[in-house]
Amino acid sequence: MDSFLKNIKNSSHIIASLKPSEKNRILHLIANALRDNKATIIEENRKDVYAGKNSGLNSALLDRLYLDKTRVEAMAKAIDEIAMLKEPVGRILDGWVVPSGLRIEKVSIPIGVIAIIYESRPNVTSDTAALCFKSGNVCVLKGGKEAHNSNRIIAQTMQRVLLENDLPKDIISLIPDSTREGVAKLIKMDKYIDLVIPRGGEALIRYISENATVPVVKHDKGLCHTYIDKDADISSAVKIAINAKCQRTGVCNAMETLLVHVDVSDRVLKLLKVEFDKFGTELRGCELTLDSIEVKLASEEDFSTEYLENILSIKIVNSVNEAIEHINQFGSGHSEAIITENYTTGEKFLNEVDSACVYINASTRYTDGAEFGFGAEVGISTNKLHARGPMGINDLTTYKFKIYGKGNVRA
Amino acid sequence: MDSFLKNIKNSSHIIASLKPSEKNRILHLIANALRDNKATIIEENRKDVYAGKNSGLNSALLDRLYLDKTRVEAMAKAIDEIAMLKEPVGRILDGWVVPSGLRIEKVSIPIGVIAIIYESRPNVTSDTAALCFKSGNVCVLKGGKEAHNSNRIIAQTMQRVLLENDLPKDIISLIPDSTREGVAKLIKMDKYIDLVIPRGGEALIRYISENATVPVVKHDKGLCHTYIDKDADISSAVKIAINAKCQRTGVCNAMETLLVHVDVSDRVLKLLKVEFDKFGTELRGCELTLDSIEVKLASEEDFSTEYLENILSIKIVNSVNEAIEHINQFGSGHSEAIITENYTTGEKFLNEVDSACVYINASTRYTDGAEFGFGAEVGISTNKLHARGPMGINDLTTYKFKIYGKGNVRA
Repeated sequence: MDSFLKNIKNSSHIIASLKPSEKNRILHLIANALRDNKATIIEENRKDVYAGKNSGLNSALLDRLYLDKTRVEAMAKAIDEIAMLKEPVGRILDGWVVPSGLRIEKVSIPIGVIAIIYESRPNVTSDTAALCFKSGNVCVLKGGKEAHNSNRIIAQTMQRVLLENDLPKDIISLIPDSTREGVAKLIKMDKYIDLVIPRGGEALIRYISENATVPVVKHDKGLCHTYIDKDADISSAVKIAINAKCQRTGVCNAMETLLVHVDVSDRVLKLLKVEFDKFGTELRGCELTLDSIEVKLASEEDFSTEYLENILSIKIVNSVNEAIEHINQFGSGHSEAIITENYTTGEKFLNEVDSACVYINASTRYTDGAEFGFGAEVGISTNKLHARGPMGINDLTTYKFKIYGKGNVRA
Repeated sequence: MDSFLKNIKNSSHIIASLKPSEKNRILHLIANALRDNKATIIEENRKDVYAGKNSGLNSALLDRLYLDKTRVEAMAKAIDEIAMLKEPVGRILDGWVVPSGLRIEKVSIPIGVIAIIYESRPNVTSDTAALCFKSGNVCVLKGGKEAHNSNRIIAQTMQRVLLENDLPKDIISLIPDSTREGVAKLIKMDKYIDLVIPRGGEALIRYISENATVPVVKHDKGLCHTYIDKDADISSAVKIAINAKCQRTGVCNAMETLLVHVDVSDRVLKLLKVEFDKFGTELRGCELTLDSIEVKLASEEDFSTEYLENILSIKIVNSVNEAIEHINQFGSGHSEAIITENYTTGEKFLNEVDSACVYINASTRYTDGAEFGFGAEVGISTNKLHARGPMGINDLTTYKFKIYGKGNVRA
């Protein structure tokens, strides 16, 4: 591991100094290499799918794992699109002249070496590798063991293009030791690794946060809320609540808890019950909820649970303040929405809810790099520092100060 | 500790929602309270100075610890100046409309609860508390035990103003348990603390980086280099090198290693020797250096040492590439300078040296919040993420996305 990481650090200087046009040319070559190697990639993927079936992976996970021609083409196309993103390195973020006459420029630069730890979907391998490459970073990838063969052939296909272009192949690396011990070692290698991004279950993220000495940008759970205020446009509220819960249920930006102001709760809940029933959503409500609609009683644990399923907990509140308090206590700081036509209530919610994304009159399902216009997404950060919310390619850069003098010395 | 931290999290919502004018009014009141309480502060400080003398603190540390009327007035004035800084919270950092019609605003907000762990100088207590207050953050301060009485009276004086203005006093808190165990516990409280900033010796910073689950912004060592290129203006190079080393020696932005291009080294070193001798600087050179001037031989260890003293190691290099490699290997990523009139060489150095601040034709001593025009300084970050280099008050904020819809649902 040590000699691997030393090499990687050296490679980071090489990728950092590549011209934008050169990076983009290579990304298009990589996309085409994936296309050309489609058959082999699918063949290797079949091994993973077969093993997954045998080990009893559920159908949702098997579907995430599965690759066919269309999906490999989508991976290639995603890389072509990453190549066409605006160059993230060398942006002059700020600049000024200080009284001593020095000119200061704050300039975006690559972070260096980024480790990404993720689970099943093989397209994450090609997406993240391409995003790191475009932003001038070396990546060290650790995918799930259930996608082992798929990830390896994808990485090898990308590496071959690097070698053909006289670049070190470890600019796009798979972790050399993918055991638990290997990962434990990697996340303490702050001398060589500049950032680790874990994407996966709570246990994985907790483990990495507690043990890493490398800085961590978490991609944690999304326990998202929608609050329907007494001054909501009710038909809009119903549409948004249904969308936030049912448009896709297994995703981090889906609503898990609905809060409704007591003044409109009876009417709203009766309307919603009809709509949720069409989607087969299981509703679990607070005691007051049970006065309006026939549903299960929600426990305190329900309000702390990210279901990632077609289940919704419902709570009736007396005020926007109670809604805000509930969210700040139970939420995960990901995405929350208020539905209201009242200016002051809306402002209060947007300002006082402590989450990465706060919405007024829109579905939380918009928390997404592509919907935000960032292009391909690195992840959705639940960190407060470095990057918060949807992370675009610019979030894979840091900055340095360049200072231009004329022989200046400090008095 | 737990109940203390729970309260603190609540207080963070109160300080976050104060109006700018209200925050500034209170800061001026705090400044005046320090002025009014000058006599008591000095009295308490005498206890620390007395104890420090008895326990054998050296004269430099005793001087850092010592307070008199002028120094307390300077502390008060610094707070008045912090009050006058531009409001750091609520800046609209970016904003755009996406194809779905949503309007997205990226807005600066307070980080929340910031723990700061630092050593001797008591003015750090008032400076940091004021910077955190201005940026809407709760602070938990852990000063050095040698300044125990001084820090306590300063914090109490500030807290009294908070209470008189119906604010919870724990907006400005000293750590309730300042033992090693207390600190060990604090840095794992990521549920309540959003950021820890350690400012101190290498051992402290290493300990915190290795054990914290709270994100850390380090204020680490500065092993700064100046490289005199073959195309340098020699008289300017001499002036800058002397300034970088001798203007103040015990500071993180002072030069510790001088690199000189072999083509000009004989002439430059002879000129520099005369100047350094006037300051009594101890020079330690590589073998080639010894051919030009009579100095001690430098060991490999010298090139890895942040002296923080009037000692300089010197190395002769064959090219700007060798200089860059030496810096990237031995440097601490803090501040480095090149002295050259050559455009291409200068560009190469500024781009390829991997440090927070890279200078051309200026002294590294300018790496400083005030010199950068940030006003009072939070510290100088040697992190790559969140904040890098001199940290101003804006670096004590994070951001959220506010998203404005018109009933938008995702398709």
